[in-house]
Amino acid sequence: MAGEIPSDEAEEIYVTREFLNSPHAAGCECLLKARGFTVVTDTEMKQMSDTVTPQGILAVVRQRRIHGLKALLEYPGPPLLMILETIQDPGNLGTILRASEAAGVTGVIMDRESVDVYSPKVVRSTMGAVLRVPFLCVDDLLPAVTALREGGMTGGIPLRIYAAHLDGACDYAKVSYRGPCAVMIGNESRGLTDSLTDLADEKILIPMCGQTESLNAAMAAAIIAFEAARQRRENDF
Amino acid sequence: MAGEIPSDEAEEIYVTREFLNSPHAAGCECLLKARGFTVVTDTEMKQMSDTVTPQGILAVVRQRRIHGLKALLEYPGPPLLMILETIQDPGNLGTILRASEAAGVTGVIMDRESVDVYSPKVVRSTMGAVLRVPFLCVDDLLPAVTALREGGMTGGIPLRIYAAHLDGACDYAKVSYRGPCAVMIGNESRGLTDSLTDLADEKILIPMCGQTESLNAAMAAAIIAFEAARQRRENDF
Repeated sequence: MAGEIPSDEAEEIYVTREFLNSPHAAGCECLLKARGFTVVTDTEMKQMSDTVTPQGILAVVRQRRIHGLKALLEYPGPPLLMILETIQDPGNLGTILRASEAAGVTGVIMDRESVDVYSPKVVRSTMGAVLRVPFLCVDDLLPAVTALREGGMTGGIPLRIYAAHLDGACDYAKVSYRGPCAVMIGNESRGLTDSLTDLADEKILIPMCGQTESLNAAMAAAIIAFEAARQRRENDF
Repeated sequence: MAGEIPSDEAEEIYVTREFLNSPHAAGCECLLKARGFTVVTDTEMKQMSDTVTPQGILAVVRQRRIHGLKALLEYPGPPLLMILETIQDPGNLGTILRASEAAGVTGVIMDRESVDVYSPKVVRSTMGAVLRVPFLCVDDLLPAVTALREGGMTGGIPLRIYAAHLDGACDYAKVSYRGPCAVMIGNESRGLTDSLTDLADEKILIPMCGQTESLNAAMAAAIIAFEAARQRRENDF
């Protein structure tokens, strides 16, 4: 993953001698050349790293900060946002960021009760997407979602807001994600709060066969994001 | 999850006194009444269970065995199979079974190099789907897939075989899953072997935005399975 770090975002780079002599060094050549690096011993690397078996390279990367909703909406294309309410599991948040990048989601908004996006487990499970997907943490999702659906942020164009909800009346694949829109995904055990759900234009549901009661939050987010991607690709034909 | 066990499949049931007095007991009432149970101490439960904090109920359940491909294809509806080659991560196999049930996959076939479907981690992560999704382990996937595509097993109707492959030329959402078909998913790091890929009618790809190199195997399986489910629902309109 170190090879995926844009060289202008790395502040400091530490490597072990063993790493430099390994085939993995080639994948990080650009980064190492652009930024320079400090060679450390295996013991020093183990002290700096939070993993039991560090990979032999450690980069200090500037945390990306997007300032406000307006900045998040300036990314190109019609906005397709994922809005996450209190996602607790690091693996789920990481998976959602990874799937969001792959599906062409233009931005992710989460509340501060969600697990820290810069916690090591989240960073690792994004597989580098944390460096690329625009995201924003907000104190309160209610005013943010209200502003998005009223369109003040998007030059008067309101975003259509969908709530993924087990009481949803609409098949998630029968609504349109072609225009500016956002999908709200709730906490793993409680789902979306009522006050946030009430702001949605539509409650959507992933129809399920068998006796499955619900899908994992990350799985639901990915399935909806890829349906949005599918519809947006169809538009191009 | 104990409440999801069909009572005719439980052989023995053990509970702690604390569990019987807890609100969770209500969810297992049918099972407990139908099969009877043995009360054990907390210490005995800890010795029997493989988790650090057991839930207080433990059921010995008969392993489901489907005998041969023909039996797997006898489940109702046009076959929609997931064929898994050497899936190694228990969480991935569990997630695939859970998503398969939810998407209406009619059966799952895996090779014996895949992680044991009855290992505790797989069983737990299926959230009960292991009790309901028809599955079959085979020694060798090659003859199984050959038989499926030739149609001898389905009264002369061949299954259309899709291989999820990073070299795929077809958008996974532009092929049809409405008829009898199967989707092959490869190992987490190596993907599908060439000999299995060569049996496919079509190599399919999930188009990805950004710099994502690949999706997790379970995520890819779920996205394709739910696209199949979407197409099959549309047929009903």
